Amino acid sequence: MCGIIGLYDKEASWAAYRSLLAIQHRGQNAAGILTLNSKFYLKTGNGLVTEVFNGFPLDGLKGDLAIGHVRYPTSGDNPLGESQPFFLQYPHGLGLAHNGNLTNYLELKRELRAKERTLQTTSDTEVLLNVFADELLKSDPITSLEGTMNKVEGSYSSVILLGQDGGKVIAFRDPHGIRPLVIGEKDTENGKEYMACSESVGLDVTGYELIRDVRPGEMVTIKRGGIEFDQIMEPKPAHCCFEYVYISRPDSIIEGKSVYDVRFKLGENIDFSKDVDVVIPVPDTSRTAALGFALKNNLPYREGLIKNRYIGRTFIMPCQKYREEAVIEKLNVIRKEVSGKRIALVDDSIVRGTTSRRLVTLLRKYGAKEVHFISSCPPITNPCYYGIDMSVKDELVASKGIGDIEGKIGADSVTYQTIEGLVRAIGMPRSKLCLACLNGEYPTNLSCSNAECLSRNRELERRNMKI
Amino acid sequence: MCGIIGLYDKEASWAAYRSLLAIQHRGQNAAGILTLNSKFYLKTGNGLVTEVFNGFPLDGLKGDLAIGHVRYPTSGDNPLGESQPFFLQYPHGLGLAHNGNLTNYLELKRELRAKERTLQTTSDTEVLLNVFADELLKSDPITSLEGTMNKVEGSYSSVILLGQDGGKVIAFRDPHGIRPLVIGEKDTENGKEYMACSESVGLDVTGYELIRDVRPGEMVTIKRGGIEFDQIMEPKPAHCCFEYVYISRPDSIIEGKSVYDVRFKLGENIDFSKDVDVVIPVPDTSRTAALGFALKNNLPYREGLIKNRYIGRTFIMPCQKYREEAVIEKLNVIRKEVSGKRIALVDDSIVRGTTSRRLVTLLRKYGAKEVHFISSCPPITNPCYYGIDMSVKDELVASKGIGDIEGKIGADSVTYQTIEGLVRAIGMPRSKLCLACLNGEYPTNLSCSNAECLSRNRELERRNMKI
Amino acid sequence: MCGIIGLYDKEASWAAYRSLLAIQHRGQNAAGILTLNSKFYLKTGNGLVTEVFNGFPLDGLKGDLAIGHVRYPTSGDNPLGESQPFFLQYPHGLGLAHNGNLTNYLELKRELRAKERTLQTTSDTEVLLNVFADELLKSDPITSLEGTMNKVEGSYSSVILLGQDGGKVIAFRDPHGIRPLVIGEKDTENGKEYMACSESVGLDVTGYELIRDVRPGEMVTIKRGGIEFDQIMEPKPAHCCFEYVYISRPDSIIEGKSVYDVRFKLGENIDFSKDVDVVIPVPDTSRTAALGFALKNNLPYREGLIKNRYIGRTFIMPCQKYREEAVIEKLNVIRKEVSGKRIALVDDSIVRGTTSRRLVTLLRKYGAKEVHFISSCPPITNPCYYGIDMSVKDELVASKGIGDIEGKIGADSVTYQTIEGLVRAIGMPRSKLCLACLNGEYPTNLSCSNAECLSRNRELERRNMKI
Amino acid sequence: MCGIIGLYDKEASWAAYRSLLAIQHRGQNAAGILTLNSKFYLKTGNGLVTEVFNGFPLDGLKGDLAIGHVRYPTSGDNPLGESQPFFLQYPHGLGLAHNGNLTNYLELKRELRAKERTLQTTSDTEVLLNVFADELLKSDPITSLEGTMNKVEGSYSSVILLGQDGGKVIAFRDPHGIRPLVIGEKDTENGKEYMACSESVGLDVTGYELIRDVRPGEMVTIKRGGIEFDQIMEPKPAHCCFEYVYISRPDSIIEGKSVYDVRFKLGENIDFSKDVDVVIPVPDTSRTAALGFALKNNLPYREGLIKNRYIGRTFIMPCQKYREEAVIEKLNVIRKEVSGKRIALVDDSIVRGTTSRRLVTLLRKYGAKEVHFISSCPPITNPCYYGIDMSVKDELVASKGIGDIEGKIGADSVTYQTIEGLVRAIGMPRSKLCLACLNGEYPTNLSCSNAECLSRNRELERRNMKI
Repeated sequence: MCGIIGLYDKEASWAAYRSLLAIQHRGQNAAGILTLNSKFYLKTGNGLVTEVFNGFPLDGLKGDLAIGHVRYPTSGDNPLGESQPFFLQYPHGLGLAHNGNLTNYLELKRELRAKERTLQTTSDTEVLLNVFADELLKSDPITSLEGTMNKVEGSYSSVILLGQDGGKVIAFRDPHGIRPLVIGEKDTENGKEYMACSESVGLDVTGYELIRDVRPGEMVTIKRGGIEFDQIMEPKPAHCCFEYVYISRPDSIIEGKSVYDVRFKLGENIDFSKDVDVVIPVPDTSRTAALGFALKNNLPYREGLIKNRYIGRTFIMPCQKYREEAVIEKLNVIRKEVSGKRIALVDDSIVRGTTSRRLVTLLRKYGAKEVHFISSCPPITNPCYYGIDMSVKDELVASKGIGDIEGKIGADSVTYQTIEGLVRAIGMPRSKLCLACLNGEYPTNLSCSNAECLSRNRELERRNMKI
Repeated sequence: MCGIIGLYDKEASWAAYRSLLAIQHRGQNAAGILTLNSKFYLKTGNGLVTEVFNGFPLDGLKGDLAIGHVRYPTSGDNPLGESQPFFLQYPHGLGLAHNGNLTNYLELKRELRAKERTLQTTSDTEVLLNVFADELLKSDPITSLEGTMNKVEGSYSSVILLGQDGGKVIAFRDPHGIRPLVIGEKDTENGKEYMACSESVGLDVTGYELIRDVRPGEMVTIKRGGIEFDQIMEPKPAHCCFEYVYISRPDSIIEGKSVYDVRFKLGENIDFSKDVDVVIPVPDTSRTAALGFALKNNLPYREGLIKNRYIGRTFIMPCQKYREEAVIEKLNVIRKEVSGKRIALVDDSIVRGTTSRRLVTLLRKYGAKEVHFISSCPPITNPCYYGIDMSVKDELVASKGIGDIEGKIGADSVTYQTIEGLVRAIGMPRSKLCLACLNGEYPTNLSCSNAECLSRNRELERRNMKI
Repeated sequence: MCGIIGLYDKEASWAAYRSLLAIQHRGQNAAGILTLNSKFYLKTGNGLVTEVFNGFPLDGLKGDLAIGHVRYPTSGDNPLGESQPFFLQYPHGLGLAHNGNLTNYLELKRELRAKERTLQTTSDTEVLLNVFADELLKSDPITSLEGTMNKVEGSYSSVILLGQDGGKVIAFRDPHGIRPLVIGEKDTENGKEYMACSESVGLDVTGYELIRDVRPGEMVTIKRGGIEFDQIMEPKPAHCCFEYVYISRPDSIIEGKSVYDVRFKLGENIDFSKDVDVVIPVPDTSRTAALGFALKNNLPYREGLIKNRYIGRTFIMPCQKYREEAVIEKLNVIRKEVSGKRIALVDDSIVRGTTSRRLVTLLRKYGAKEVHFISSCPPITNPCYYGIDMSVKDELVASKGIGDIEGKIGADSVTYQTIEGLVRAIGMPRSKLCLACLNGEYPTNLSCSNAECLSRNRELERRNMKI
Repeated sequence: MCGIIGLYDKEASWAAYRSLLAIQHRGQNAAGILTLNSKFYLKTGNGLVTEVFNGFPLDGLKGDLAIGHVRYPTSGDNPLGESQPFFLQYPHGLGLAHNGNLTNYLELKRELRAKERTLQTTSDTEVLLNVFADELLKSDPITSLEGTMNKVEGSYSSVILLGQDGGKVIAFRDPHGIRPLVIGEKDTENGKEYMACSESVGLDVTGYELIRDVRPGEMVTIKRGGIEFDQIMEPKPAHCCFEYVYISRPDSIIEGKSVYDVRFKLGENIDFSKDVDVVIPVPDTSRTAALGFALKNNLPYREGLIKNRYIGRTFIMPCQKYREEAVIEKLNVIRKEVSGKRIALVDDSIVRGTTSRRLVTLLRKYGAKEVHFISSCPPITNPCYYGIDMSVKDELVASKGIGDIEGKIGADSVTYQTIEGLVRAIGMPRSKLCLACLNGEYPTNLSCSNAECLSRNRELERRNMKI
């Protein structure tokens, strides 16, 4: 869950900045932009896009080619630098920004070290960059990317800024197209300009028209004034369903499907027969599904929970003592809509169950008579190894089935979406979706003998920094 | 439009911090907290509450008595310090945080200067503090506040932190009670604690129960473990209607009325007969009114505009060139809900008309067939002299009547709330409301011969800093 | 040991900045400038002058009247603000910067609190400011200063910036003139400009000509384009001898005496008869005395100790473990000048003995055959209550006599200046000097019954912050 | 004119920090430390060592191997990073810190670019690092360094931190040994530790004993607990004479010669016969030579110029208007030693003549009767291409001969050292010294056809950044 962009634009750093603002929801932990004229210019930092570039002269990031990144909080260890894009001077000078997760990165790391490559971090982005750089020592970019794709496993929607031959941006997606990546075009008086971005909202705010998604296994090369498409690997689509459920902005279009539409239908598709007085969404992500649900079931829709807009996703109470209460700090209750009411509380999904339980408790504190919890997503029973922060099975509240899920979160009832309903809402053949977190069918080769070990190893490494 | 708090709490600075977070919407420009044990401790700064206190050890603000402030952007000039609370060392040590506007402050300033008081800023808060300090040289706090109220004109909901006799917090409201101020109480193992706050949400997040509003003309004294109420001036209630329409959070209760309820009714009260396909609110303030409107008129409610949560009210494009487009940066359109549709666009109010016009333009760009603009507030035709940022009549788009208002903002039609509908929604006798911005009937004495000059003089002073 | 300035200058903040740079040696802990046009402008901060004003636009400190301050490290406690100048808004607006120490400040503090004056810090500067402000409520500045001088005891060379009647700077010195303060004048095309400064070097760097010292008990009023002199109290001169020995820069002129000359003579006046090979000064303060000593005794002068110019007086090792070794970090030895040599090591004085012992050890480590320690100052046997950081008698290595002083610092011999030699070097009647640290004859009334308690009380208060 | 260190030390970052403090005089513009345990850790920044590491936890720079650098101000252009050490990830991970100047770096740059190496800066350090990295792809470190030395021309005393085989520090010097580099050893309970440093003072402050200088053309490998010496190229010594004259600290030992001794003899060697009253040094560098001069000529030595210790070499007046006067700000005059006197003013050297002229003017302003200027260095007539900031011939005031040098700097007479006197003071055979700036005999091959073009090309590149 990160966001990336890559572009050719006469005002590259400025367009990159605005697009990163638009996909800030994909990562609030760090941000960075790498640009190229005849030299490379890099600015990265921890915090929101507005914080990282606060008071920074964007003009200092010279050039008309750029890649950028927003990072979701992870416990990385990066002694030499700060955050993405990562940059290597040799060969040609090249930088990379990455969204996804390489499942065989431990193995790749060992191979790279044998080749005298120093890896400074535990980030798979650095591994991906070095695998590609290694190929590039022997070959041209297309062949290098093919070699890279043959080696790496997992999910990767990435952009590379390459210094060779005056410079170009390369955008590519793994053969399953797990994480999203779209391409846009803009007509200007200086000719056509191009942008690759994790979500189409990044194109909207900078005047780019959405052309289409980068295809699974495809390499898109953006040059000054031109664009080329090369299908590197045979596409085996397995698009992440959770992008539609939670991650992406509702105003984005992924694989031609409006996220807003999908969420609205997710609400409509819920089969629900309890008697309730009111439908209340958990702001902000669940509003669309709740609306669809309320209309379909002919129930009144009310904004019974109000969000404090000034406390971000990553807000941390400066005092340990009160950290538990943070959910109350972020949400306030409209007593009139809650007190004495039988409530259908709609949330996008139930992951660990912690937030769900706090929400139910909060509503009951304000006098709710009944709280029926609606999850617009089916039960999440399996870890995700492709870049979403739910990689440890034991932490998933539904990992051992949804028996007594009501008890676990304290609700009067819990109603889940069905997998069939989800697929229908997305409107894509089931075979083209990655539903691994729902059904355990992982689209990629997990070369580790035991899938469970993937996340455990990963966590151990993160904590001990021993590898 | 600022927010204030005053409290006795064992963890005063921490409670102040959390309450200020809850009323951050009343001012994002600056924040500050003043505390007292046997000494005073002050921390103020420019920016959001989280920014001002980022990395600041709240423990350094010692004591169990505190006042705090969040400031709305104004063009003040304060060479010696930064922002409120203002502090004076003599007599006794006293600080003040203020929400409102003194209409006779030029006159007061002249008087104070004659008394050898140095005024460093053009802020009326500094004037109010010095008038009170001057009285306090001669008398006790109650008599001093009475003397102060007899001198100052305009609106003021304020809190004072006084060092005398071990310390106390004084909360008071002008005789008209124009700006809001509520009192809450908390039972703790150490006895009762008390808080005064601009809005009840500030009480909610820190565990205080709302007792009631500070009465117009009343002085409330919060001491360590006790509270006293003194009616200083005869109450002549004239509560600001715009607090219900726009300023306050929907989850606040003002004068016993839920802001959420009022807004919902504002939507229901609109008389509307056009044929439209969909009701779309302008997020976030108009959502409640739009919902009431849609349900009453049996029209589909859709979230066709999506707000970027990471761009605040005060976000400023770092590049002049694109400042015009900022509204597009903050809002993105769900094309499916807009394209080819006849839209009822609900906003809380129309002030200058600039934003309204941009919204209509934006929807048309995405293919809206018709855009009918609904204002949940009646036409704003007169300046406000009581602290809301609409003090220059010529800037109000409806100041010369609503003729061709459609043309001015580019909408197919514009439908306003009626004053009667507004009063009904609030559910309070019309005589107890300040409706000056709607009907020109100002509740206070405007001792300047020409009301218009009030804002003009004020603006001149702000710009020239000559006085 | 602080430094102050006060001035009327068309470029007041700029001249203040440069003069503070010139007297930076008097205090490296904090710095500040307060200016006045029709308003007051204040900038203070911790650190060196260059650090405090690094990146700060001096133009922002508007006006042609200013006072400024550099502070010596003390363990103050100042919750509301940072450092001097202190500022009070009432009456008229007035600020104060102070060099010295009030010996009856505890008593003054009690009186002020009885008068409803809040004191925020344990600084005597705040007390002095409030005593004067209190007088000013009743009277004109001259009478107010007379009233102030009648109340306060101790040493004070101070400047006040007063807002009354358009503004003026008042410079004054206690009746004993313990701490230095000089007045300079500059002819400009706009008429005459004036500056008061702790040392004449502050005048030199800004083009002011030294007129004379402010007289003991005198008040000098600097107005726009004019200067007035009022003798407030009868002068009873007792100028600090340690200014000549150590504190002041050698290029300063105090009471008409060149500090360089005095130090040179201090060296000449030492009676010394040991056989040594070389004279080595402890850089930088002792260089002049060492030169005089070497020439008089016909001994070779060598720079055997080299100072690291990049480690300031206040440099603190960032690691506790190595703090002990700091003296080695600051000084490096020229082995050739030391190894096998009988050395006369000249230092300005011996206070606690710690540094002296480390110096001797360092020289021995590099092979010195003998180390004879020469102190250009007589034995320091009594605490100073007038602003020099040696206020606790027990900490002075010579407080119980100089028996076995050689053993205490590890030298082969120790030779002190005589009091008579010191007086002769300064060239002023003994009666006009404060020699209290040498002979225990304190020039001021020490109203505390037991002189010793002065420093002890002071220390207790500093540590406990109980008063 | 930079300073470098490389070391194996259990507390590597801490020892590096202290040694960099000791050689801060070699560069005040930027500083950096790179350490290695199993990963690399890098911290660089602009400013003094104390500023760059102010508040930085040295513990964060983990490991027992380190290299470090202090940089002299140059107008570099380094968009990706800040300052040295430079770091490359591939192969093995390696960093480099460099003191010197490569005279064929334009040619090397072209070759590197042809090999797909991206160069981001105009720094020859980056070129040197890449040449070595390129060799290292094909071979072991010794062969790689031999290959590097065969390619690069000019001066280079450098340290490399190499990640290969667990890590090692490589220190080396060009075959002429132009810039200094010494090796020290420390016995600890954990065995022997080693340090390479530009000057021996860096060893002194961290407890290392000076072993000897790195030999011209030698490679010294510091490993954990061991050291190896490999003579890579035949030594052709040509040590920089200006290190003795000006650059190094007086307490350093270079090639076994005490810099203090050399400077003292430089003073003694001056042939001078004018009648003067006093000898005055320009602090701080000229003090030693002035002392030697005064004693030899039996003239009184006086410190007539006092330096403001708080204004560094790189202090820049924050106001353009007064920049001219900066020399007055840094130096103050003791009038008594100057007024009416015939002065022998001793400075280390005369380069551009600007400072010399200002000094003479300053002394005359204070009433000097005659000013005779003594340069402890012979006339500087030719540019230096080996790393000292005097690379443009036309800027050297003596480049066209010393005719009327008195007129140019305004002195009554100018007396220079002779080359013979300089050689004698250093005490080394003339053939082993680089005297190029004095006699135009450059020890290295200057492959550019016209030596003059070296500096001109260099300057053009610096300014235009076009290459």
